[in-house]
Amino acid sequence: MELLKEGGVTAAQGFKAASTAAGIKYQGRTDMAMVYSEVPCVCAGTFTSNVVKAACVLWDKEITESGRPMQAVVVNSGIANACTGEEGFAACRKTAEAVQEALGIPSDTVAVASTGVIGMQLPVEKLAAGVKAMAPELGSSVESGTAASKAIMTTDTINKEIAVTFEAAGKKITLGGMSKGSGMIHPNMCTMLGFLTTDLSIDKALLQEALSSVIVDTFNMITVDGDTSTNDTLLLMANGLAGNEKITEKNADYEEFYKALEYVCTYLAKTMASDGEGATKLFECKVVNAKSKEDARTLSKAVVGSNLSKAAIFGCDANFGRFLCAMGYSGAKFDQTDVELFFESVAGRLRVFDHGVPLNFDEELAVKIMKEKEVTVFVDMHEGSEEATAWGCDLTYDYVKINADYRS
Amino acid sequence: MELLKEGGVTAAQGFKAASTAAGIKYQGRTDMAMVYSEVPCVCAGTFTSNVVKAACVLWDKEITESGRPMQAVVVNSGIANACTGEEGFAACRKTAEAVQEALGIPSDTVAVASTGVIGMQLPVEKLAAGVKAMAPELGSSVESGTAASKAIMTTDTINKEIAVTFEAAGKKITLGGMSKGSGMIHPNMCTMLGFLTTDLSIDKALLQEALSSVIVDTFNMITVDGDTSTNDTLLLMANGLAGNEKITEKNADYEEFYKALEYVCTYLAKTMASDGEGATKLFECKVVNAKSKEDARTLSKAVVGSNLSKAAIFGCDANFGRFLCAMGYSGAKFDQTDVELFFESVAGRLRVFDHGVPLNFDEELAVKIMKEKEVTVFVDMHEGSEEATAWGCDLTYDYVKINADYRS
Repeated sequence: MELLKEGGVTAAQGFKAASTAAGIKYQGRTDMAMVYSEVPCVCAGTFTSNVVKAACVLWDKEITESGRPMQAVVVNSGIANACTGEEGFAACRKTAEAVQEALGIPSDTVAVASTGVIGMQLPVEKLAAGVKAMAPELGSSVESGTAASKAIMTTDTINKEIAVTFEAAGKKITLGGMSKGSGMIHPNMCTMLGFLTTDLSIDKALLQEALSSVIVDTFNMITVDGDTSTNDTLLLMANGLAGNEKITEKNADYEEFYKALEYVCTYLAKTMASDGEGATKLFECKVVNAKSKEDARTLSKAVVGSNLSKAAIFGCDANFGRFLCAMGYSGAKFDQTDVELFFESVAGRLRVFDHGVPLNFDEELAVKIMKEKEVTVFVDMHEGSEEATAWGCDLTYDYVKINADYRS
Repeated sequence: MELLKEGGVTAAQGFKAASTAAGIKYQGRTDMAMVYSEVPCVCAGTFTSNVVKAACVLWDKEITESGRPMQAVVVNSGIANACTGEEGFAACRKTAEAVQEALGIPSDTVAVASTGVIGMQLPVEKLAAGVKAMAPELGSSVESGTAASKAIMTTDTINKEIAVTFEAAGKKITLGGMSKGSGMIHPNMCTMLGFLTTDLSIDKALLQEALSSVIVDTFNMITVDGDTSTNDTLLLMANGLAGNEKITEKNADYEEFYKALEYVCTYLAKTMASDGEGATKLFECKVVNAKSKEDARTLSKAVVGSNLSKAAIFGCDANFGRFLCAMGYSGAKFDQTDVELFFESVAGRLRVFDHGVPLNFDEELAVKIMKEKEVTVFVDMHEGSEEATAWGCDLTYDYVKINADYRS
């Protein structure tokens, strides 16, 4: 596997992207994007577990589960189209119909995705105009993909895209993707919005299985604020243009693809966590030697999800009791007298708690370690052999600022 | 039942309190309190569900479950005595022994409670000196009780105490209490620290049953930051000095007591929520007509627990989608097309969402309603007949400020 120096959704053969300023919510910046494949794609998707699902989630779920191909996806970053009733669902249909008209592909192969304010209707005419404007601009350049990754941002401060290549069945395969955060991030299926494209030829069921498996330890292990969105959507489109013999079983080629997918999803998930609303740093928790994989996931997610832990990370305060407290209420069972806890970053490693006993540690070194842009709380449970890593960010004044007046 | 104009833990007959500045963490303010009954008490207690339990929680649990009487409780507000191993448990014993020496009561009838930094050992000699200083100062005046309620504060901005009287079996009974917040508040058993005293004569099992039942819809329905503490402790001591015929069954007298206990716990819980760290207002969510009581509790707690909802309340932003989103990921099952949602305060009532459809509402009125000190999100599920109310507070810059440098 090789990481490309640049590129995202347009890296794989046959994929094009475009973006436009449709004026849905933001003025003076792009707020719509489209990703299109020259040929119909096998697709896989994972969606929010929130009972309140956005209209577009229902729309995309239907396509993904129907067995029909997917050939395009249209995204807007102004209005979430959640809690919008039948009118909201009609907006999805009308958007897809606009793509059918502009590009001549069936509307029931067009996915739609939204992020933004909940409980507000989409301006359908603006969306349709946006689609019409984007259709002739679709391009396969790096720039087109990058522009799309910028158009889907809301409170994100950086755009998130990546592309890798790997070999399968003697062919060079490309996998690229983009995603956006950065609030209401506590995926319980996938993250807010993520779009992955590949020119691999693969069986649909296997594609879905790979995606569903990979998100468990990537997108589902990040949290910004504990709020599982109504709109979480991750789509993976595979158009087969790499010309490899179609993957239909879990052979070595599948493993290569799986590793590439895991790499891409880990990168996008971590980038989303570190760019959480108001965040100044990436806050990682690695739990090792837990009794079960599920325990390891639960414990590490509780630590990075705790407001008090997040505030301590922001303040560079090695207040390790908060991390143990979060582990304690996580739901996982353990004995605190087994636990060993460290702070880690590029500046060093410091043991602060050992088998139930707090240690006298070097406070200066602690601050030095915690001042780095990426800080890890490393927890050895000494109770088993399973491990997991979760990613979050610090809780800052800016998180409050961003969210106290987001809508207005 | 009658609410007393003033008073707390010393209101009931035979209860005395004292406080002192022991210099455990804070300088220049009181940080230790003692509550003492002239005669041994029947006691009940509820404690944190956190797997990581503070040493003092284990100590008090043992007394409460042993059947032995309780006659005094010693509290410090500097160090939590959690994650402190055997040395921490020894500190509990030594504190109780200091009370035995000073007051001549058995050390195994002395409860201890702590709040403050986790993962730091208690300075036992300072605690013992504090006990020695408080013993001769024990007083039954309102002032003594109030001083105790101030000594147990950490980041609280107001002390929390209340006392009521009611009649049972022809006698006037008094019930008083005090509690403290105000961070790491997401009780899953009871709140941080609460101490209730009554001169009622009642069977121990009934006392525990009443307490365990009342906390479900009072202390367990508040949240400040979602962090369930390692130290949550609620103790109820009944010394029988009112001289009523002992309550041994759920008769009318028990009901009177239950009502008084519910009133006192509701008051203390709500006050704790509104005085959450950095809070500027009380944020209440009332869910009615839910399918089950459990659903109603889950839904209302999810709404007041959501960071995004809390930030919207701080910003007076009627961003109702965030409330629906929180309900959606709460774990309760419902159909959003059944839901009706209102904002309420003394300034008015406004319907913003009706059976799956967002309404065009008066934004000016929304801001007016949300600017009040107590704001309610009222949700009619239209799916059943059960209801519940949860209390929290807004998420503010000051919450971050308080918690980014709490330990230092």
